Amino acid sequence: MSGFVSFVSAGPGDPELLTLKAAARLRAADVVLYDDFASGAILDYARAGANLVAVGKRVGRPSAKQEHVNRLLIDYAAAGARVVHLKSGDAGIFGRLEEEIEALQTAGIDYEIIPGVTSACVAAARGIPLTRRHTSRRVQFVTGPDVTGRLPANLNWAALADPESTTVVYMGKRTFPALAAKLIEHGMAPDTPALFAESLGRAQERIVRTTIAKLAEQLAQASAATAAVILFGALAGETL
Amino acid sequence: MSGFVSFVSAGPGDPELLTLKAAARLRAADVVLYDDFASGAILDYARAGANLVAVGKRVGRPSAKQEHVNRLLIDYAAAGARVVHLKSGDAGIFGRLEEEIEALQTAGIDYEIIPGVTSACVAAARGIPLTRRHTSRRVQFVTGPDVTGRLPANLNWAALADPESTTVVYMGKRTFPALAAKLIEHGMAPDTPALFAESLGRAQERIVRTTIAKLAEQLAQASAATAAVILFGALAGETL
Ligand SMILES: C[S@@+](CC[C@H](N)C(=O)[O-])C[C@H]1O[C@@H](n2cnc3c(N)ncnc32)[C@H](O)[C@@H]1O
Ligand SMILES: C[S@@+](CC[C@H](N)C(=O)[O-])C[C@H]1O[C@@H](n2cnc3c(N)ncnc32)[C@H](O)[C@@H]1O
Repeated sequence: MSGFVSFVSAGPGDPELLTLKAAARLRAADVVLYDDFASGAILDYARAGANLVAVGKRVGRPSAKQEHVNRLLIDYAAAGARVVHLKSGDAGIFGRLEEEIEALQTAGIDYEIIPGVTSACVAAARGIPLTRRHTSRRVQFVTGPDVTGRLPANLNWAALADPESTTVVYMGKRTFPALAAKLIEHGMAPDTPALFAESLGRAQERIVRTTIAKLAEQLAQASAATAAVILFGALAGETL
Repeated sequence: MSGFVSFVSAGPGDPELLTLKAAARLRAADVVLYDDFASGAILDYARAGANLVAVGKRVGRPSAKQEHVNRLLIDYAAAGARVVHLKSGDAGIFGRLEEEIEALQTAGIDYEIIPGVTSACVAAARGIPLTRRHTSRRVQFVTGPDVTGRLPANLNWAALADPESTTVVYMGKRTFPALAAKLIEHGMAPDTPALFAESLGRAQERIVRTTIAKLAEQLAQASAATAAVILFGALAGETL
């Protein structure tokens, strides 16, 4: 008898933004592994008696942490459990599925991936457009840090320093000051509208409209504990 | 007594990918306006007796159609109805919310936007990665046609002809042959992996793995009746 792993997208914080399928998988799970940004009220959808396991906290080096999560997934599933790994936003967007899936494939364990609402898509609900007919025909999601936690050196600056695109930076709080400096170096106006959106869908949600230059200054002193996406581009200054 | 309009994201076809909030709004609605690609089994979530109104079909010119939808939203809401406008995928991604919202604001009618799962995010569930740690740190969503239905002239080619980015083209079936020709002109390899994903989440779902050059050839003869997204870039040739 072998178990099964569901990678479940938790959406951006608000439990009501779970999909019907995600809620069903949570209700049916024997074990729920959950990441830091996929916790809170969402876990109430798990049945009483389910085993809830936080896997977001650092267990030493990132690779050790990943191996630990892989091990848990395989051990629980091999024991016959219905396992859910709850991931923030949409599991396929910067969700690092590949390492876990490779481990499951090697172990011969079946799995599925359930799509969800990615953090960027909360913007419209808060009155900030991501796309606009005829003027903004490109929206891009990028990630801040590289392996070492720093801004990667060789990025596509023509793609990034384009005010006609709406750019959403994930995991970008720490590296945004370096990113903004580079964007400005590559011709982007320092007063390009930017939006800082923190703890979306939670009680502590905070949205600040600013510019890339000012946000870079502010983030140089910020702590990295909370989840935030950063939007920039012409549309980030507009209202739906 | 005044009504209320909810712009509800329907997700990419599969009713189980509705959010809990979307399902709740559908159940409570007096009137549901729905677009072509936001129809089918999803409408079963509306209560018996709700007024279901298809607004996807062309009513003459696009501007006439938009005015017609605006008029319906305002008239139903002004009569006190709870109105849902069901939009495919995530309502904020190429959802043309701005015209409708402007009309509602002018008419003094309250509204809300409920985020959802955008079509691109089904990819991971079908084994195609959108992002990959360390190698693919940018995913972009673009739209095919301009006002006239043709490919816009001045696009950001450095951003688009970048195989390290995963690009998802929405509404792009008709313009993809022209787009692919331009991408190749701007240095993209003709055998860059491409993926054609049609009618996602429905019984007729069809996913074809190919290259940008071959897909351009195939689409030159295709009809435009079904919904499809096109992915291209190095990751479109990989497997999760
Ligand atoms: C490992 S990435 C995963 C992204 C996630 N898969 C998604 O689609 O939103 C974690 C990053 O997601 C963003 N994020 C996740 N939840 C968030 C929330 N509730 N509010 C703001 N940003 C959030 C932050 O940028 C955070 O650093
Ligand atoms: C007006 S745009 C709206 C996009 C939508 N808001 C979203 O987030 O997916 C319509 C386009 O969405 C894509 N689309 C919508 N539903 C789809 C489905 N079930 N399968 C594939 N593509 C779909 C197609 O590219 C279609 O031309």
